[in-house]
Amino acid sequence: MNNVRIGIIGIGTMGSAHAKYLYESEVKGAELTAVLEVQEEKINWVKENLQEVEIFTDENSFFKSDQIDAVLIATPHYDHPRLAVKAFEYGKHVLCEKPAGVYSKQVREMNEAAESNDLVFSMMYNQRTNPLYQKLRDLIQSGELGEIKRINWIITNWYRSQSYYDSGGWRATWEGEGGGVLINQCPHQLDLWQWLTGMMPSRIRAFCYFGKHRNIEVEDDVTAFAEYDNGATGVFITTTGEAPGTNRLEIAGDRGKIVVEDGKLTFWRLRMPEPEFNKEYKGGFGSPECWKCDIPIDGVETGHKGITQNFVDAILTGSPLLAPGTEGINGLLLSNAMQLSTWKDDWVSFPLAEDEYYEQLQEKINTSTAKKETKSITLNVHGSH
Amino acid sequence: MNNVRIGIIGIGTMGSAHAKYLYESEVKGAELTAVLEVQEEKINWVKENLQEVEIFTDENSFFKSDQIDAVLIATPHYDHPRLAVKAFEYGKHVLCEKPAGVYSKQVREMNEAAESNDLVFSMMYNQRTNPLYQKLRDLIQSGELGEIKRINWIITNWYRSQSYYDSGGWRATWEGEGGGVLINQCPHQLDLWQWLTGMMPSRIRAFCYFGKHRNIEVEDDVTAFAEYDNGATGVFITTTGEAPGTNRLEIAGDRGKIVVEDGKLTFWRLRMPEPEFNKEYKGGFGSPECWKCDIPIDGVETGHKGITQNFVDAILTGSPLLAPGTEGINGLLLSNAMQLSTWKDDWVSFPLAEDEYYEQLQEKINTSTAKKETKSITLNVHGSH
Repeated sequence: MNNVRIGIIGIGTMGSAHAKYLYESEVKGAELTAVLEVQEEKINWVKENLQEVEIFTDENSFFKSDQIDAVLIATPHYDHPRLAVKAFEYGKHVLCEKPAGVYSKQVREMNEAAESNDLVFSMMYNQRTNPLYQKLRDLIQSGELGEIKRINWIITNWYRSQSYYDSGGWRATWEGEGGGVLINQCPHQLDLWQWLTGMMPSRIRAFCYFGKHRNIEVEDDVTAFAEYDNGATGVFITTTGEAPGTNRLEIAGDRGKIVVEDGKLTFWRLRMPEPEFNKEYKGGFGSPECWKCDIPIDGVETGHKGITQNFVDAILTGSPLLAPGTEGINGLLLSNAMQLSTWKDDWVSFPLAEDEYYEQLQEKINTSTAKKETKSITLNVHGSH
Repeated sequence: MNNVRIGIIGIGTMGSAHAKYLYESEVKGAELTAVLEVQEEKINWVKENLQEVEIFTDENSFFKSDQIDAVLIATPHYDHPRLAVKAFEYGKHVLCEKPAGVYSKQVREMNEAAESNDLVFSMMYNQRTNPLYQKLRDLIQSGELGEIKRINWIITNWYRSQSYYDSGGWRATWEGEGGGVLINQCPHQLDLWQWLTGMMPSRIRAFCYFGKHRNIEVEDDVTAFAEYDNGATGVFITTTGEAPGTNRLEIAGDRGKIVVEDGKLTFWRLRMPEPEFNKEYKGGFGSPECWKCDIPIDGVETGHKGITQNFVDAILTGSPLLAPGTEGINGLLLSNAMQLSTWKDDWVSFPLAEDEYYEQLQEKINTSTAKKETKSITLNVHGSH
C-alpha cells in the first residue's frame, strides 16, 4: 500500500475539519477518497470544497467500496461502536472520534470486533499529543514521581450557556448523547486520567447533578471520588456551569507532587523519597527537603492531525498507536461509573456492572421528557455533527 | 476593671507561648496573674520565667482565686469543655484553645453554660486574624463573589512523620485526641471553611482513612464532599502523609472565582454576573468576560496575641469578638460529621446526630488497641500540652 485511502463518516464540525487537512495532503501517506453523508447542506459543502472525493449517501455502498482502506468515524456518539464494528467486518481500519461510544457494553463489542480482525483501530484522543501531558506521563511512568498517592483534577472550565444547549435538540439528552459534561466535554480528561497514571480505580463514589445549572436532563456538575488498589485516591471535579472555571491537575506521589496548570508543569521534587525520610527522621515537625522544579516542555501539540498521522503510520509501517482503540473503553468506564454511582447513591466497583448501567441508561431514555417534541427533527438536522 | 487578670490552664507548647507574651505585657489591658499546672518540669519553667505569677496545682483553688478575672484554656482537647463550664460557674471569662472539644455534644454543653452567664467566651481561632482570610471573607460577605457555587480546599501540607506521632502516647489516639488530622491539624481550616462563607453544609459524604500513612489508629487522610442548601458543593481534602503538600482554597461564585494560594488572593472577576450572561447570550461557545484581579492584602496577621487582645478588649469595652466561643462548635461539627460519615459509609445530614457520634467515638476508645500499654504513662507526661 502506498497511500492509505480514507473515507470519513459524518461531515459535521469535526468531520469537516478532518476532511480539510486530509484533502490538503497534510497527513503523509494518506488520501481522502470518500465521505459518507446524507444531509444535503453538508453534501453541498463537500462538492464545493472536496472536489474528486466520492460522496456516498448509502452506508452499505460506502463500506463495500474498494477505494477505501480506512474509515474515520465522526458521527454522534451512539453510532460509533456500530459503525466501527461494521467497518472491521468490511476489512477497513478504523479511527474513531471520542467518546468510543455511550455505554461501555457497546464499546466492549467494538473492541471484540477489532481484536478478531488484523486491522488498525485508533481513538481520536488528540490530547495525548499534548507535550505537557506526554511529559507528565513520562515523569510518572519512569518512576520520577514515585508511587502515586493522590490525583486531583479540577476541570471546570467547560462553560456552556443555555443557548449552547438549545442549539441542537439532541444536545444534553439521554437519547441524543447519553450524558452531559462527562460524555461530551470530558472524554479527553477521563482518558488522560487513566492514561497518564496507567491506573484504573478499584471503585468510585460520585455525585452528579442533572440539569443543575441549565435546563437540560443530563449531568452538568460532577464531583467524583476514586479509590485505587495501591491505596491512592482521586477527585475529579467538572461542570459546564461555572465561569471562568479552572483546569488544574495535581498528582502527588511519594517522591513529590506535580501540578499542571496554565500550560505549565511544576514538579515539587523531594530530595529523598518520603517513605525513606519517614523511616529515618527522628524529630518532631520536620518534612523532606523539597525542590520546586520547572519542567521544560518540548515539542508541539500535533492534535487531531497528529493522531491521524499516527494512525496512518501504524497502517503503513506497523508503528505503535498513541491512542489504541482498545483503550477507548477506559475513559468511558469512568464516565459510566460516575453516573451509575449517582443513580445508586452508592459505591460502584470495577469491573463495572455494564448490564446494570445499560439498563439504567435505557430507563433514562425511555422516561425522558426533555425536548421530546423536537428531538426527532433536530436529531435529523444535526445528525452527523 | 482596669486590667483583665488572666490565669492560664496548662503550660505546654501553646500555654507557655501565651504566658510569655502576656508576661511581657504585649496585650494591652491584660495581666498574667496565675497558672494552673501539675507537672514539676513545667512548674519549674514557670518559676524561672514568670516571676510573681501565682502557681496553682489544685484546680478548685485556682478557680476560687479572686486574682483571676479570665482563664485561657490550653490543655488537651478533651478537657476544654469541662474546664470552660467550670470557669463560667466561677464567674470567669474564657478564652479557649482550639478545638473547642472533641465531640460536638460536649461543646454544646459548653455553649449552654456560656450563654447562661454574662461572661465573655472566645475561641483561639488565630487564623481569623490573617488579613488574607479577612479579605476573602469581606469579598464573599459583601457579595462581590456573588452566590457561592463551589468550595474546594486542598489542605495537604500537614506533613507529620511517624516520629512525630511517637513523641507522645496520647497523640493520634481515640482516647488521647479523639481523632487525627481533622481534630489536631485542621481545626483552623474547618473553622475558616464555615466562617469565610457563612454557610454550613446540609449534608456531608466523607472518606476518612485511619492509619493509612502512619502507624496510628485515627484518620490521617480525608476527602470530604459537602452539599449546601443553596445548591453549592464543596470538597475538603487533607492528609498528614504527603510532602510537600498543598494549601489551595478555591471558591467559585456566580460573579467569578477566588483562589487563595501561596499567601496571595486572586479574584477572577466576571464583568457581568454569570446568570445574567447566560440569560442574554444567544451564541454557541461564549462565556462571560473575565478580569484577573490581584487583590491587595493590607494589615498584619496578629495571630494568637491578636485574639487575646480582642478577648481582653471585649471584656473591658464590650467590643465584638472576632472568634466568639459559640462559633467553636461549627468546625467541630464538620469534623465529627466527616468521621461519622466514614464509619457509616453513608451521608451524614445536619443537624448532626450528636448522640450517635458520641456513642461511636466511645466504641472506638473502648476497642482501641493502639498504644494501650503506654497510654496512661504518656498521657501523664504530656497531659498539659
